[in-house]
Amino acid sequence: MDTPTWNKPLTIVKVGGAVVEDEAQLRQLLTDFIAIKGAKILVHGGGRRATTIAGKLGIETKMVEGRRITDAEMLEVVTMVYGGLVNKHIVASLQAMGADAIGLTGADANVIQAHRRPLKNGIDYGWVGDVDRADGDRLASLLRDGITPVIAPLTHDGQGNMLNTNADTMAQTIACALVPHFTVSLRFAFEKQGVMGNPDDPTTFIPHITEELFAQLRADGTISGGMLPKLENALQALHQGVAEVRIGQTVITR
Amino acid sequence: MDTPTWNKPLTIVKVGGAVVEDEAQLRQLLTDFIAIKGAKILVHGGGRRATTIAGKLGIETKMVEGRRITDAEMLEVVTMVYGGLVNKHIVASLQAMGADAIGLTGADANVIQAHRRPLKNGIDYGWVGDVDRADGDRLASLLRDGITPVIAPLTHDGQGNMLNTNADTMAQTIACALVPHFTVSLRFAFEKQGVMGNPDDPTTFIPHITEELFAQLRADGTISGGMLPKLENALQALHQGVAEVRIGQTVITR
Repeated sequence: MDTPTWNKPLTIVKVGGAVVEDEAQLRQLLTDFIAIKGAKILVHGGGRRATTIAGKLGIETKMVEGRRITDAEMLEVVTMVYGGLVNKHIVASLQAMGADAIGLTGADANVIQAHRRPLKNGIDYGWVGDVDRADGDRLASLLRDGITPVIAPLTHDGQGNMLNTNADTMAQTIACALVPHFTVSLRFAFEKQGVMGNPDDPTTFIPHITEELFAQLRADGTISGGMLPKLENALQALHQGVAEVRIGQTVITR
Repeated sequence: MDTPTWNKPLTIVKVGGAVVEDEAQLRQLLTDFIAIKGAKILVHGGGRRATTIAGKLGIETKMVEGRRITDAEMLEVVTMVYGGLVNKHIVASLQAMGADAIGLTGADANVIQAHRRPLKNGIDYGWVGDVDRADGDRLASLLRDGITPVIAPLTHDGQGNMLNTNADTMAQTIACALVPHFTVSLRFAFEKQGVMGNPDDPTTFIPHITEELFAQLRADGTISGGMLPKLENALQALHQGVAEVRIGQTVITR
C-alpha cells in the first residue's frame, strides 16, 4: 500500500570535491552521513583529480574567468572520473557500511534533466549542463525502496550527450523536487564551521540565519562575496518548500 | 497491485567490448536492442580502451596466460572506463533513443554480489570478482517500473572494493536470477553469424542446438575450443530455467 510520505524526513547532503578526494575526510563524512536517520541522498562534487588525470592523458585544462571549459575530451575525463572512479568508490564504501547506495548521474533513469549551457557573454563553456528539473517521483520511489542515491555532478541533454554540471545546483533542484514527498533538509558540507561574520575569526560564527537576519547582514556588509549567492540559493529553496538548509553548522530557515 | 510477471518476456543482451568501442557498431546494436519488445537488460564488456588509457597514464597492463591482472591502479582505470565512460555513453544514448536506461555496476543497489577471486594455480589475478549471486527481486522491481538496466562489467566485494568482472558470467547470473519473475531469453551478441561447424566456412552455420545435438557435436569434434565453455554455460542457464539462449543467431534450447 502506498502511504503518503510527505511528512517523513529526507536529508540531502552535498559534499565538495576536495573532501571526496581525501580518504580520511571522506571516511568521516560517510560515517556522519550513515548516522543520519531517515531517507538520504548524497550529492558529490568532482574535485581536482579530473585535472590531474586530464594532464596525464595530454588533455589541456582550459579555464576562462576561473571556470573550467568542458570540451569533448574533458567531458570524457569528467565522465570517467566523476561518474566512474569517484561515484563507484563512494557507492562501494557506503555498501560496505550498510547503506544500500546506488550511483546515479542525471542521465540514469533520467533523474535530472538539463540542457547545454548557451553562450554567456560570448563564452562557450562547452559540454556544461544547466539544470532544468529533477524527477522527484522517481527518486522518491527509490528512497521508499530503501535505496540511497549517490549523485555525481553529471547530467545529460536528452540527445545522447553527458554534461558536466554544478553539484550545488543539482542538490538544490533535487531538494525542491522532493518537497511533495518528504520533509526535506538540505545540507552543504563546508570546510569552515559555517557562515561567519568574518571568515578569519571563528568567534564570528553565525549559528542561525533567517530571511530577516540575512537582509540585515547583507545591508550592513557582514555577508558579501561568494557567500551571498549561496545564501540566496538557500532562501530560494526554503521558498520552494525545503524545510531547512544548512551551510556547515549554520542553520538557515525562513 | 502486484501482478505476477513470471510469464512476461525479458531479454538480456550481452555485448562485447569491441562493439561498444566502435561507434557505428554500437549505434546499430542499440537500435536493435531498442526494437526488442518487453523488458530488457543490456550487459556490456569493457574493451581495449582501458588498456590505451592505462598506457597513457603510465600504468602497465600485466597479462598472465592471456588474462589481465587487475592491480589497484588498473582497477581504478577499469572503474573509470567501464563504469564511467562506456556505461554513461550507452545510458545517455539509450535515453536519447527513448529507453529509460539506468547504469549499474554490481555495487549499485547491491544488484550483483561477488568476492575477490582466490589464487588460482598460484596466480593472483588481483581485484577480479567471481560472481556469487544477482538480486533478481531488485532488478525485477526496476524492470517493472519501466527502467532498462545497463550493466558494466564491475562488481564489489561488500567490503568497499570494486572488482573487475567477466560480463558473460554477469549476464548469465542475472538471467538465472530473473527466472522467477520473467520468461527469460539470454542473447550473446557475437562477431560471427553464430555457432559454426567450421568457423571459416559460413555455410556451416548451425541455426539450432539442443542438448542432444550438442553432445553429438562435441563427441564428433565439430565443436571445440572456446565455443565449448560458451555452450556449456548456455546449457547450464537453460537447466536453471532460462527459456532460450542465443549465441549470435544460433538458438540454444533444451
